[in-house]
Amino acid sequence: MSATLSSVDDQFSANDHRYMARALVLAAHGLYTTDPNPRVGCVLVRDGEVVGEGYHRHAGEAHAEINALTAAGGSARGATAYVTLEPCSHTGRTGPCALALQEARVARVVVAMVDPNPQVSGRGIRLLEEAGIEVSVGLLEVDARALNPGFIARMATQRPFVRMKMAMSLDGRTAMGSGESQWITGPEARAQVQRLRARSSAILSGVESVIMDDSRLTVRAEQLGLDNAADIASRQPLRVIVDSRLRLPLAAACLRAPGRTLVVTTSREAEKHERLIDAGAEVQVLSADAQGRVDLSVLLEWLAANEDVNELLVETGATLAGAMLSAGLIDEMQLFVAPTLLGGDARPLFTLSGLTQMADQQRLTIHDMRAVGQDWRIIASPVVTGTSDDTKVP
Amino acid sequence: MSATLSSVDDQFSANDHRYMARALVLAAHGLYTTDPNPRVGCVLVRDGEVVGEGYHRHAGEAHAEINALTAAGGSARGATAYVTLEPCSHTGRTGPCALALQEARVARVVVAMVDPNPQVSGRGIRLLEEAGIEVSVGLLEVDARALNPGFIARMATQRPFVRMKMAMSLDGRTAMGSGESQWITGPEARAQVQRLRARSSAILSGVESVIMDDSRLTVRAEQLGLDNAADIASRQPLRVIVDSRLRLPLAAACLRAPGRTLVVTTSREAEKHERLIDAGAEVQVLSADAQGRVDLSVLLEWLAANEDVNELLVETGATLAGAMLSAGLIDEMQLFVAPTLLGGDARPLFTLSGLTQMADQQRLTIHDMRAVGQDWRIIASPVVTGTSDDTKVP
Repeated sequence: MSATLSSVDDQFSANDHRYMARALVLAAHGLYTTDPNPRVGCVLVRDGEVVGEGYHRHAGEAHAEINALTAAGGSARGATAYVTLEPCSHTGRTGPCALALQEARVARVVVAMVDPNPQVSGRGIRLLEEAGIEVSVGLLEVDARALNPGFIARMATQRPFVRMKMAMSLDGRTAMGSGESQWITGPEARAQVQRLRARSSAILSGVESVIMDDSRLTVRAEQLGLDNAADIASRQPLRVIVDSRLRLPLAAACLRAPGRTLVVTTSREAEKHERLIDAGAEVQVLSADAQGRVDLSVLLEWLAANEDVNELLVETGATLAGAMLSAGLIDEMQLFVAPTLLGGDARPLFTLSGLTQMADQQRLTIHDMRAVGQDWRIIASPVVTGTSDDTKVP
Repeated sequence: MSATLSSVDDQFSANDHRYMARALVLAAHGLYTTDPNPRVGCVLVRDGEVVGEGYHRHAGEAHAEINALTAAGGSARGATAYVTLEPCSHTGRTGPCALALQEARVARVVVAMVDPNPQVSGRGIRLLEEAGIEVSVGLLEVDARALNPGFIARMATQRPFVRMKMAMSLDGRTAMGSGESQWITGPEARAQVQRLRARSSAILSGVESVIMDDSRLTVRAEQLGLDNAADIASRQPLRVIVDSRLRLPLAAACLRAPGRTLVVTTSREAEKHERLIDAGAEVQVLSADAQGRVDLSVLLEWLAANEDVNELLVETGATLAGAMLSAGLIDEMQLFVAPTLLGGDARPLFTLSGLTQMADQQRLTIHDMRAVGQDWRIIASPVVTGTSDDTKVP
């Protein structure tokens, strides 16, 4: 590790770091809007001056490099381009960026990380090098990867990056035994959850939670607290309801909310399918696990392959949450902890079946714990037994 | 509040603050050894030089002022004495400190806080003033009060300061459903718990926990990580077991451990009393609450009046913990949180009877949240409905 770091240090100057850091900041402007594309930023520097900046804003619009080249115009010639992700080599909606950089006669390209898609990874770099352009790779790579955990997971593992959000009392309860659950956490924590929804391609919930809480599972512009809130909320994440036996009430609030609701099931009862579709849902039959429920691993692969889901936000109750955790399908947990006690009769955070001995406990790595309003947010990831999970969370 | 602060600022110089801060540091040296006396420190300053320092180490030994005067000798004449607690006016084992300061001819006495015992409060100050010594009161009072929450509570309310320690998983579980509970938290958290025990006059537990865990509830010198660990562990806090029906096993580890074990009960069955006494326990019958169990409020008053209990550490299971919390008897909670999940079938932190609606939830004020080894420690206090509890925790 330190050997790698020192070789990176040798290869890149302080100014290289500075401009790539700026490109990362630019890329983050697209955090809530580029889906299903990755967030990418680009800075063009000539003779120690920034001559062009750009980032990717929306799928279907120009890539970061094209925006930066457009801003620079003729000044791009001889410049160094700092790009947070390897320039593409394919002819997409905006043409290959590697070719555009070549045509603009940039002298050097610094890349934070290679394309995570194994089928094209390295092609953009090769194209640039073959054109005689100096290419350096790996500057601030950790930060670049942290920008796109979902896109990277989908490209490299054909699965989304799965983030589980939970709100609980200090004694680990999500709601009263009766199901009463509103207002555990304060407005600051709820705004954070809105932002988690907004950066996600899809939100996953179980039919039990939908029946119990009847949440809309939407992004509400007014709760985001962001300048481009209206633009962000114009794209609603896909709502995915796991409903093996098709019990979703036709009057569920999520069916009337803006955006799509996809019910995934193992049931092939045509009549139920029709009624749900009439109520505004889409229905997808997936293969069942040993218990006859939707196979969650298959679901993740299906969402990546068919819906281009990068980041999947899981907002659900103890049963589905416990099943996903037990199956090792959770990459990151964000726990919002309210300074209150609900007592031992209240609803638990997780149902972890088969967990009866301390030896079976699910260890976590805590990455961050901080105050959010009067609540606390804990970011953690499950420790995969026998391995370090440090690479799983950006 | 700001008016009070500014008047304190007017009255005291920067040097006054500096020397009182030093006196507070000295007082803290007695944190684990002065029980049942308060922790007190004293600094004597003449012509801008510290001429004597002292603190109270053990009950039965010299008070802080006497130790500082002894260190200063003749240099005490004309000095300013900084004392963290009002000098005593009574003739105890070491004579009244107010008289000793007068006899040493100190010119000025700065006191952080008055004696919290309403029967003697102000007498030491009056004695000094009548001797023509200038007395100033209230410098760094908040910090001085934080040194002695138990002594202050016992003097002012005739009850101990009640601190509840709990170790839990991130999902609010203390043990597996089976009761298996060892090693939830790591060695750093356990050392912190040892220090909590060491500063307490007594440790309170329920008979259920003793039956389940068979803890010794002792201070172990080797786990304290402190220089004077042997001195500290030579005083074992009184173990108090709430055992309304006298079910404590005669082979319980706590009965064979160093120090006293007091069983408090509502049972008057003489034979059971005798057997417990033969096994090494002391037995005390206390009045019963409406359910026939030991009245916890009476217990606290009894411990303050008969055992001089300043700080009481509650280490127990969900039932007794819930009962104390519901009764409003907890002043401070220290939660040690391990980065692990035990699942919804594991043992809960609290049984809060009658808590079935969100409106009844027990709100907390979180004072501190920090990493302790790989675990986290949360210091919180229950919010008393309708009032602010900010004054309850130092």
